[in-house]
Amino acid sequence: MAVATDSRSLLEQVKSTRLAARWLAKMSTEAKNQALELVAQALEQNAEQILTANQADLAAAKEAQIAQPLIDRLKLSPAKLADMIAGVRDVAKLSDPVGQQQIHRELDQGLVLRRVSCPLGVVGIIFESRPDAVTQITALALKSGNGLILKGGSEAVRSCTALVQVIQQALVTSAIAPDIVQLLTTRNEIKEILTMDQQIDLIIPRGSNQFVRYIQGNTKIPVLGHADGICHLFVDASAEIEKTIAIAIDAKAGYPAACNAIETLLVHKDIAVAFLPQMVAAFKQAGVEVRGCNRTIDCVPNMGLIKATDADWDTEYSDLIISVRIVDSLLGAIDHINQYGSHHTEAIATTDPGNAQTFMSDVDAAGVYHNCSTRFADGFRYGFGAEVGISTAKMPPRGPVGLEGLITYKYQLVGDGHVVATYAGDRAKPFTHKDL
Amino acid sequence: MAVATDSRSLLEQVKSTRLAARWLAKMSTEAKNQALELVAQALEQNAEQILTANQADLAAAKEAQIAQPLIDRLKLSPAKLADMIAGVRDVAKLSDPVGQQQIHRELDQGLVLRRVSCPLGVVGIIFESRPDAVTQITALALKSGNGLILKGGSEAVRSCTALVQVIQQALVTSAIAPDIVQLLTTRNEIKEILTMDQQIDLIIPRGSNQFVRYIQGNTKIPVLGHADGICHLFVDASAEIEKTIAIAIDAKAGYPAACNAIETLLVHKDIAVAFLPQMVAAFKQAGVEVRGCNRTIDCVPNMGLIKATDADWDTEYSDLIISVRIVDSLLGAIDHINQYGSHHTEAIATTDPGNAQTFMSDVDAAGVYHNCSTRFADGFRYGFGAEVGISTAKMPPRGPVGLEGLITYKYQLVGDGHVVATYAGDRAKPFTHKDL
Repeated sequence: MAVATDSRSLLEQVKSTRLAARWLAKMSTEAKNQALELVAQALEQNAEQILTANQADLAAAKEAQIAQPLIDRLKLSPAKLADMIAGVRDVAKLSDPVGQQQIHRELDQGLVLRRVSCPLGVVGIIFESRPDAVTQITALALKSGNGLILKGGSEAVRSCTALVQVIQQALVTSAIAPDIVQLLTTRNEIKEILTMDQQIDLIIPRGSNQFVRYIQGNTKIPVLGHADGICHLFVDASAEIEKTIAIAIDAKAGYPAACNAIETLLVHKDIAVAFLPQMVAAFKQAGVEVRGCNRTIDCVPNMGLIKATDADWDTEYSDLIISVRIVDSLLGAIDHINQYGSHHTEAIATTDPGNAQTFMSDVDAAGVYHNCSTRFADGFRYGFGAEVGISTAKMPPRGPVGLEGLITYKYQLVGDGHVVATYAGDRAKPFTHKDL
Repeated sequence: MAVATDSRSLLEQVKSTRLAARWLAKMSTEAKNQALELVAQALEQNAEQILTANQADLAAAKEAQIAQPLIDRLKLSPAKLADMIAGVRDVAKLSDPVGQQQIHRELDQGLVLRRVSCPLGVVGIIFESRPDAVTQITALALKSGNGLILKGGSEAVRSCTALVQVIQQALVTSAIAPDIVQLLTTRNEIKEILTMDQQIDLIIPRGSNQFVRYIQGNTKIPVLGHADGICHLFVDASAEIEKTIAIAIDAKAGYPAACNAIETLLVHKDIAVAFLPQMVAAFKQAGVEVRGCNRTIDCVPNMGLIKATDADWDTEYSDLIISVRIVDSLLGAIDHINQYGSHHTEAIATTDPGNAQTFMSDVDAAGVYHNCSTRFADGFRYGFGAEVGISTAKMPPRGPVGLEGLITYKYQLVGDGHVVATYAGDRAKPFTHKDL
């Protein structure tokens, strides 16, 4: 088992995870769910050990004068640990994503094609300081049949180590080899695993924009995730003002560090005079700094707005700051979003169904919303049980990604000596192509 | 319209394709199928012009002493053009991949999530000397609602230009803007489009390994395709010898330049003495050069085998050459394939169902075959109508990719002022998560 004291090379460790994953890929749903239940029980039985390790992390974080929000994310309580354990059991209840038959087709008599879902293999997940990510991600990886290389934030190293040790010990008594999950504890190891494109099938980085971009730029392994989250709310001429203000406050001030928070409010010129004074007042009350374009400042001249520069449209504040721009039309809003947005989640407030439809078709994003907050962009809120990350890529999987992001498929073709020559040339036999 | 004489900059051309694609994305199935029919009719009416351009390409190719197989691929005949036109009409018959509702779920009363398939946007396809690719790819792109930037082999420039001109002229009378498809005619333009990651959503390179690797290494745009096609056939101890020889000959000698042809034959030691003399004789008769490991040469000492080196296991010959290696076990074969294979298509010949199952689970490839030729790995043979390429990536889409590779999805969420705050905190309202 590989926690901190592992004497094997990192490559040997990862290879052992790959081998364990090859067995896990063939395991029954029951065996996987049993292993998850063993993990849940072990976490219950070793709660004290885990909370003690977390106390040590917290003490060190305080001594290092780490910022309070980070300490809040780091902190485990008996109640939070109970939630984490419930989360493991919730994943056991999700339907098994492996072995699902997506295509079953006779190509010709005795020649049968199946497309069957299967695990990716080994997934590397690099996450921030939340120790609760360990149990959630481990549960998702085991359920989807994947090996897992974990790297948590250094502030959480004692908590993560305690959690992974408990998980590995629980797996000793299960059908799954404990090597299926391994924890990396040093930053150097990240660099090393980025080179292991023969051993690791997917990297999911969760962290700052800069960190995600570093990962994307320094590996041949596919990366699932998003660097930026520049989301917009467009207030159309026909928007309902009261509801729209509530949406804007939720989307900006509810949790400004979230990637699905809005950074820019676009306002149709025909509603600006009626809408903006109330909106800006609501932002001020919520402690949000407002940066406006010239027309916005002209519209609410006495409310102390800061002048927005071009750089503002490109900025993910991740803070209680919003930029506001007046646009002439729906198309102007769409063009702004397609130019400056990060293809994450974009919303329109309107009572005009035609405009809503145009917005949702023409805006180039994983999520397009009508009359609701961008902050619904989340795997749990979508009903996926849990999420491994949010992707802003154009190719699927995109948006909030649950178990689906840990799964691929294989084509299996079974014949009885069938050769292609039979189906080629002047006397080519036709395929039957009959779905079964 | 943009064939050779376009005076706009390349970026302006690509932007006009992107704009045309935004309209196409919203078009009805009927409008798209009508446009495809107009294209088919125009190709019929302008057959002479197209064949004359092709004659000029052929004359230039002969003068340049270009290899015969390339000239064969370049050549259009009235019959081949008729097949191409039939292919356009076949794509019109395929079901529309756009607008399919994949998820329809109530998150709470009045808050409804849909996941709907949609086009990627603009796709760049760089293909070899076959002019027939122009009509097939254009039909797939129009049907899937995507703009298309085409670049064909320079030998085919006159043929491709004639085809694209006819297609664009046909589109003038359709609902689709002719700028939806543009042809690049110089190699320099490839370099330029690789930088347009804001305008182009996917690149599909079809060509040599070296060329595909160059594309993969020089763009931020996602690349669909495969560099290598190192496929294997493993002859298990219980394989039926006669059928297996037929499969091996089909998979190696049928079309050795194909990516789904086999490069290495792995033979279980317990069948080597009975199998190899007949197999090698059949290879010799088919004109295939055989390179054997030491044990293979010992097994058939008087048949003039060349000694295989380690480099052979890594080589895609794309020619009438095969390497043969004797392995001790099924697991030995799987390990060889997972080490040297390119995750394309791998086959086992066996009468042991358990061994077949282990092989199909443990081999890491887009296609895993039992008792049939690897050359079935092809979109048409799978019943996809046509293919845009074959992907050896781990993430979907993989294997032969049809219309599915030109499609992504969007999450659309519609509410009535819904905010996340309602569903958070101590008095959190639960989500209903009810599939509709």
